[in-house]
Formats: sequence, C-alpha cells, structure tokens
Amino acid sequence: MKRRNLLTAMGLGLGGAVLATPAIAQGPPQIRWPLASTFPRELDILNGGVEFLVRRVAGLTGNRFIIDRDPSLRPTADQPMLDFVGSGGAPIGLGASYQAMDREPALVFDTSVPFGLNARQQNAWMYQGGGLALVRELLADHDVVPFPVGNTGSQLGGWFRREIRAAQDLNGLRFRVSGMAAEVLRHLGGQPQRTGYDRLRAALEDKTLDAAAWAGPHDDLRLGLHKAAPYCYYPGFLEGNAQLSCYVNRQARDRLPPEYREAVEVACAEANLWITARYDALNPAALKQLTAEGAILRPFPLEILRAAHRATEEQLEALAAASSRFRKVYASWKPFCDAQHLWFRIAENSFDRSASLQPPETSRN
Amino acid sequence: MKRRNLLTAMGLGLGGAVLATPAIAQGPPQIRWPLASTFPRELDILNGGVEFLVRRVAGLTGNRFIIDRDPSLRPTADQPMLDFVGSGGAPIGLGASYQAMDREPALVFDTSVPFGLNARQQNAWMYQGGGLALVRELLADHDVVPFPVGNTGSQLGGWFRREIRAAQDLNGLRFRVSGMAAEVLRHLGGQPQRTGYDRLRAALEDKTLDAAAWAGPHDDLRLGLHKAAPYCYYPGFLEGNAQLSCYVNRQARDRLPPEYREAVEVACAEANLWITARYDALNPAALKQLTAEGAILRPFPLEILRAAHRATEEQLEALAAASSRFRKVYASWKPFCDAQHLWFRIAENSFDRSASLQPPETSRN
Repeated sequence: MKRRNLLTAMGLGLGGAVLATPAIAQGPPQIRWPLASTFPRELDILNGGVEFLVRRVAGLTGNRFIIDRDPSLRPTADQPMLDFVGSGGAPIGLGASYQAMDREPALVFDTSVPFGLNARQQNAWMYQGGGLALVRELLADHDVVPFPVGNTGSQLGGWFRREIRAAQDLNGLRFRVSGMAAEVLRHLGGQPQRTGYDRLRAALEDKTLDAAAWAGPHDDLRLGLHKAAPYCYYPGFLEGNAQLSCYVNRQARDRLPPEYREAVEVACAEANLWITARYDALNPAALKQLTAEGAILRPFPLEILRAAHRATEEQLEALAAASSRFRKVYASWKPFCDAQHLWFRIAENSFDRSASLQPPETSRN
Repeated sequence: MKRRNLLTAMGLGLGGAVLATPAIAQGPPQIRWPLASTFPRELDILNGGVEFLVRRVAGLTGNRFIIDRDPSLRPTADQPMLDFVGSGGAPIGLGASYQAMDREPALVFDTSVPFGLNARQQNAWMYQGGGLALVRELLADHDVVPFPVGNTGSQLGGWFRREIRAAQDLNGLRFRVSGMAAEVLRHLGGQPQRTGYDRLRAALEDKTLDAAAWAGPHDDLRLGLHKAAPYCYYPGFLEGNAQLSCYVNRQARDRLPPEYREAVEVACAEANLWITARYDALNPAALKQLTAEGAILRPFPLEILRAAHRATEEQLEALAAASSRFRKVYASWKPFCDAQHLWFRIAENSFDRSASLQPPETSRN
C-alpha cells in the first residue's frame, strides 16, 4: 500500500527524480514535484508563502526543479499531512505537525504548546536548540523529513459570543481550538470542538459553537468571526506561536541531486522568515479594522490564565510520564523554554515595554 | 579610483564572473568571490553565520559559486563596509549600515533605532513593510545592493563601572555606544565614545571609559566586560535590535547568472534567521554565567528611559526636518513602528507575560 502510493505519486511527477543520478552528468535534471497543501484559500499569507517557496526553488535551479501545487493531492479526512507525505501520497506537502498528536503527542512541540515558546523562541529551539533533530527522530520511521516553513506568531485568544469574566465561564463552553489546547480546555471544564474553518462563522451564528480560536487578526478578519462572536480575548495563550511544517518524502528526497535538496531546505527557512514577517506586517491594520467593525478586545482574567497554566503543566507532566518518546523531547524543550522566558523578560519584553515608556520587567517572578 | 578598485577586486577573484555569460551555455560557471568581513574573531555567532551563508551558496550551486572570506580585504579606518563594497573593494562584504550614518543618517533604519523596532519587527518592516526597498533606494547611487543577513536581537543596556540611579548620573559619562545612540546620549549630557572592541575592557579598567554597550550576554561574556564594569543595565533601549547587512557590489552582481543571484539572496535570508536563532539560543546561559561571575543586573530607572525616549523623538524629528531623504524613510518607518508596538503589546508581549503568569498588557498606554 505504502509502496503503491509512492509509485502513484511518482507517476504524478516524480519520474524525473528517478533519472537524477544518470542525468546529472549532462547537467542538472528536470524534475517536477506535485505539492500537497490543504490551507484554505482564505489563508492568503500561508498560501503566499507556499508560492514564494515554489518560486524560490525554481529560481535557484534555473527552472529545472519545479514544485507545483496539486489540489488533487489531498490527505483523507483526518489524515495528517505528514502521514500522507510519509506514505507516498505526495513527495512534498505542508501542514501542522500537531494534526498527528493523537498518534504521537510529542509532535505538539513541532507546532505549538500552550504557554510555551513564542515564534522566535520556537526558531531558536528548532534550529539551534536541538528541536529539529528531535522532531526528525520522532518521524524517522515515517519516511518523512520535516522542515519549519512558517509561523503565524502569537494568535488571538479566541472569539466569544459572551463575555468571559471568570474561570467558571469556561464550564461547558463549546470552544473550537486546535492541538494541545483541546486537552487544556477539557481540564478547565470546556468542551473543545474541532469545527472546520469553513463552518466556523456559521456555527457561531447558529450557536452550536460558543467560541472559536482560529488564527490572528488578518486571518480572522477574512472569516468574519467578529460578526458572530464580538468578544475577542487576548493573549492567545493556547497558541503563542503556530509553526507550519513542510514535509518531504524521504525516498523522494534521497533521489534529488544535492543542490535540489539544499534548495528545498533553504527555501523552507526563507519562507519561515517571510511568513512571520508578513503576519507581523499585516496583523496590526487587521486588528484596527476588527475593532472598527465592532470587535471588543478584552484581556483574559488572570484567574483563567492561572488555571490554564496549571492545566498545561499537569498535561505536559502526564504525557511525559506516559511516554518515553514524549519525555525525551520534553526534557530538551522544558528547560529551553524556561530559560527563554527569563531571558526575554530581561531583554526583548523589557525593550518592547520601554518603547511604550513602561518600566522594565523585573528579573525574577 | 572607483573603477581601479573594482578591477583590483576582480583580479582578486571576480575573473570568473566576467565569463559568466558565455560560460553558462556549457553549464553554470565556476565563480570565486572574496568576501570582506571585519567582525572581530570574538563574535563567533556572526562569524558562524558568515560560514553558514558561504557553505549554503556553495551547496546550492554544486560548489561552482565559491564565496571565500579574505582577511586582506579590509575597508580603510572609518570607511563603512558598504562604501568599501560599493567602490569595488570587494564584490561582497558584511557590516552594519549605521556605520555610514555620518554621510547618510537615514541608514540607521537599516540597522537600529533607539526605542524602535525589535528584531522581528525589523524583519517585518524590511521584507514586508517596504523597508528594504527604501534602503536600497538610499544606496542606489552607491553601486551596492544590501541584504539583511543577521540580527543580534535586543542587546543589553551596557556595562557601567558605577550604579546609575538617576538621569543626572549620565552627565559627563564617557559611554561607548554605536550608531544613533551616540546622539541620544549626547542629548542626555553623556559623552559618547567610539572605543574599538579590542580596547573596551582595558579602557574600562584604566577608567578612560565609564561604561560600554557592546552586544548581548554571549558576546559580552567573551570580552569580559563585567570584570571591569559589573553593573549591567537593561533594557538595551539604545539597540533593541541590531541588523547586520550583506552588501553586494552591483556590477559584480549583475554579472552573476540568475541562479547565483538567487543563491546569495536566499542564503542571506537564511543567515538572518540562523543568527538570531543562535543568539536567542545561547544568550540565556551566557547571562546566567555573567551573573555567576559577579555581574549585577539592574533595570534602568524609568526617569532615564523617559529622558532618552524624548531625546530620541527629538533627534528623529530634527533629522526628518533637515533631510528629505531621511523624511521619506521615516514616513514609512514611524507609523509602522507605532503599529507594531501596539500589536505586540496585545499579542506577543501579553503572551510572553502569560507564560510567567503576569497579567496581560493593557491595550492602550
């Protein structure tokens, strides 16, 4: 089955890759890879990042290595993109690793952990703190090589139909969240939902959903969630960053000439920078637009942050106790995360505060 | 003179580039570029970033485009690297654009402005907010094309031999600072110094210098500044980010095959990500080490931040009034900066605070 899928994908465009070794003597081979991506059309920044990556790979290889988005290549319902690519459904695909957390909880570290790393800290851990190597180890027997390819930055805390004044207001709340946030919300008495993006606004309007966290201002504005649920809470403690991944099928990658492998790797890194820069550049105006259209921006009560923080710690400890694979990644991530938080308080957060003439953070809690 | 310099540089390694057009018909040409970089040996992260960039360009081009650091290629004393590269001293070189601020004050926006953008916001402005295009316009008549290539993130506020309790303690203070910080310090009664890195510790020890801002914990630890001036103040409001630039000589670039031009551009973007990730990953342990070795970490008094903030605003307004070139860049940068600060307070800073169980920022000052 796995082999057959791979051959199917090869038929769709991997043919050239097979010829890579003999062809290279006559110059770099012509290769065409179909790319699988299920980002909804509305996510124009993520889709723009994919276009950017694809153009860069073509440009780096003199238009010899062409990666083409193929809308017909789609994982089956609930199949994480990394499994689709790993099983040969496509040579390359984009998605978020926490989609596979039911099978492998440690994959949350490849996307986002509540109260965890912010986007810059995530890059520091992935590229320079051993994170990427650990994530690749988790996926070693899945024939897929992941690359960070983008990050939304800190998201909003969600759109709520009613005000949230205390932790008890989360009781029974049907709240659409992603990834590990679902478990944390359950701890707090909420009812996490996995409503698809295309149903979000309607579900809030017909009151089958009480609240929804989608992404940040730019993306949320396009879905019009504020029209159905005007209370927007911050910070987005459930997803203080959301890293997207580019998955490359291992066998397909092994057949690439080394220059093309490097082109994919470097283009992913550049897209990672590009996507966060674009979210950062466009989110401020979108937030202004949202409030102009009636969104009511509110900070979460500290009581809720405390309860959610405790629930997150308990959940992480429980997962670490239950799985040596989780424990191994957590043992790298946790001290890195704590050190980042302390350092950012001194340096980045205090600098950011000084720009608004607020006093520096204190150096200890 | 300019032409002669360029020819000299070509003799040192640009020869291959001249043959690029005829050679490409037989496959990509072999090109060797000498790279000029004056980062001191102690700046291992920046130098590591240069090595990383050079390896990536080689890897992307099948070792056909080789960029080689050439220590003999050095700007004359006080000559900014961008002028050295622009005048043909080297086809490629790394430096900081604010080194040329005496000639063109608007170049501070290509490096760092006190109380300005942090590293992520700098990327957002450069890549997605029009910043890079504006900076390139400033340099259009200098035959040099700049690329962001790294960022230290927020630096420390400096090492002081004595405690700083009030704004008046800055009076007459001989304080080593870089870039626009010098003017701000002068406004506050201080005496900005441009002491070279290799003299910093000795100058603090023999008391010809009262204070010195160099970089962040990782770099400062290597210079041992804390041994001579134990009071370390934060935040580093004078340099909340410090972007490094890669300068490419325009004529040399024009002669490259398009694939090689793309290789330089994408490798610079990746190095930008790599360098910040590495600073972020290594700074926390260095800060711990510094305090273990006697560094005394203190927040700047709010009074000083207020006075410095006012001095910065006045300085920016004065520069904008004096020069239409400065005004044009400032007109893009200033509203972008204000919008970023507000958005980061809601999103990033509030998320970062929640991780330490501090209440969210308020949405207005």
